[in-house]
Amino acid sequence: MNVGIVGLGLIGGSLGLELRSLGHYVLGVSRREETCQLARRQEAVDEASAKLAPLANAEIVFICTPLAVIAPTLEQLLPYLDPETVLTDVASVKMPVVETVSPKWSNFVGGHPMTGTAEQGIAAAQIGLFTETPYVLTPTETTPKAALRQVETVARSLGSQIYFCPPQDHDRAVAWISHLPVMVSASLIAACRSESNPAILELAQQLASFGFHDTSRVGGGNPELGVMMARYNRQELLRSLGQYRQSLDQLMSLIEQEDGQALEQLLQSTNQARPQFFSRKHHTGNPSNTTLGG
Amino acid sequence: MNVGIVGLGLIGGSLGLELRSLGHYVLGVSRREETCQLARRQEAVDEASAKLAPLANAEIVFICTPLAVIAPTLEQLLPYLDPETVLTDVASVKMPVVETVSPKWSNFVGGHPMTGTAEQGIAAAQIGLFTETPYVLTPTETTPKAALRQVETVARSLGSQIYFCPPQDHDRAVAWISHLPVMVSASLIAACRSESNPAILELAQQLASFGFHDTSRVGGGNPELGVMMARYNRQELLRSLGQYRQSLDQLMSLIEQEDGQALEQLLQSTNQARPQFFSRKHHTGNPSNTTLGG
Repeated sequence: MNVGIVGLGLIGGSLGLELRSLGHYVLGVSRREETCQLARRQEAVDEASAKLAPLANAEIVFICTPLAVIAPTLEQLLPYLDPETVLTDVASVKMPVVETVSPKWSNFVGGHPMTGTAEQGIAAAQIGLFTETPYVLTPTETTPKAALRQVETVARSLGSQIYFCPPQDHDRAVAWISHLPVMVSASLIAACRSESNPAILELAQQLASFGFHDTSRVGGGNPELGVMMARYNRQELLRSLGQYRQSLDQLMSLIEQEDGQALEQLLQSTNQARPQFFSRKHHTGNPSNTTLGG
Repeated sequence: MNVGIVGLGLIGGSLGLELRSLGHYVLGVSRREETCQLARRQEAVDEASAKLAPLANAEIVFICTPLAVIAPTLEQLLPYLDPETVLTDVASVKMPVVETVSPKWSNFVGGHPMTGTAEQGIAAAQIGLFTETPYVLTPTETTPKAALRQVETVARSLGSQIYFCPPQDHDRAVAWISHLPVMVSASLIAACRSESNPAILELAQQLASFGFHDTSRVGGGNPELGVMMARYNRQELLRSLGQYRQSLDQLMSLIEQEDGQALEQLLQSTNQARPQFFSRKHHTGNPSNTTLGG
């Protein structure tokens, strides 16, 4: 199959490596000639250029650009595509993408491979990036079944675990487990920095260990990612933050009231709830884990 | 030197192993005969019993019981001690211990070895538990210098990094980097669990990955530890929670106002601030890391 990949970063490049290893012919597109050269050298593409015209031959096109560039990319891309071409994307928020692309291209399926590394860019592209990681597909009522099955088949061939849900469900779920943690964690760092006694701040910095390390990790990450979450998933993020603030207030009031028994119950419930968020890791590939929504 | 250890759990047992390996004679005390037997079998003590009388021969006594048991243990212990005996403890909150012990025993130095493992109890005791980990000593104005130097010397011989500060500074610093993260993290789990749509909660559980894993870790830990923090470090914990809530509110208002620029600045500041909390790991043992307060 001829596969187009627009945007040759970590995800686009890794997708190219995987799909070529599966025998597909990969047409890469990047605005930067340097990136095209690197993609060819890494054998992440069969051909690469800054031009969109070659994608006229693609049966499926993955848009792997940053979210902010999807809309203008789409405007330039659509005139070249065969009407049968299936379009999909890899953005980490789905409502704004689905709302932008669906009215303009019916053969579109929103997608979100939930993978990554600490490194960004084509230089970090690698085989195995999608193995046993979730790949969420977000069809709507108007998504053609054939287009959905085609994207699903490609995603499964990467070794991903496929989940189906409406785009708004995806955005609400990732607000909880991906975007809210960033804001919770960033607020922790910001609060510690606000300590007005420099001797205590220095002591805190010296004594910080695994607990602070883990809880602060995502809040000390790439600022652009946090801004992207707030911009594109604003409504769901604010909803989860509002609920979080209520949970925090409840916990604070138990401590204020010295209600140790209720606090212990609350902490027992979080102790018991946490493993439910990681059950997937114990039975990867089990079809009972596939949520069919939409 | 004859060293007494009251309470043969993970810390008491590991202390015994280390001090015996350094050639000290270790007198262990545990209420439970089974624990005494295990401590002898593990060679964490030279002798062990449920009786406190043998500690009359100790030059230094480490109280390694849970915080809640320190006061009653003290009442029973003091009548046996030689007035020259130096007393110290290993509790993770210092003000309540210092306020309890200091008026009753002048040769007392509060201490907090900041180490641990996932396992508890004498069975998990091990050599190396204190190596290159912080050991905070919290002298007050009335602490005899000789007593402080004696505890410092023993703590240094364990391979720990020694910090000195007043007990209230310790409690404020650990509120920031140890106790606040637990409450922040527990509130995250509690908030996610409050999602009213079961399909979305299930999806969130399935999609949760490293970000949620790390941010939720300490909030899903041992409930008793969280209750202990809230009980014994209540005032400092509430202070840090109040400041945290302000930081959270500020971040939420930037998202509400769609002020991406200010949000990016805030996330850049947390990105830059976080490594300052882990600089110790890069130059362990450097005396410039020792904060002398008190």
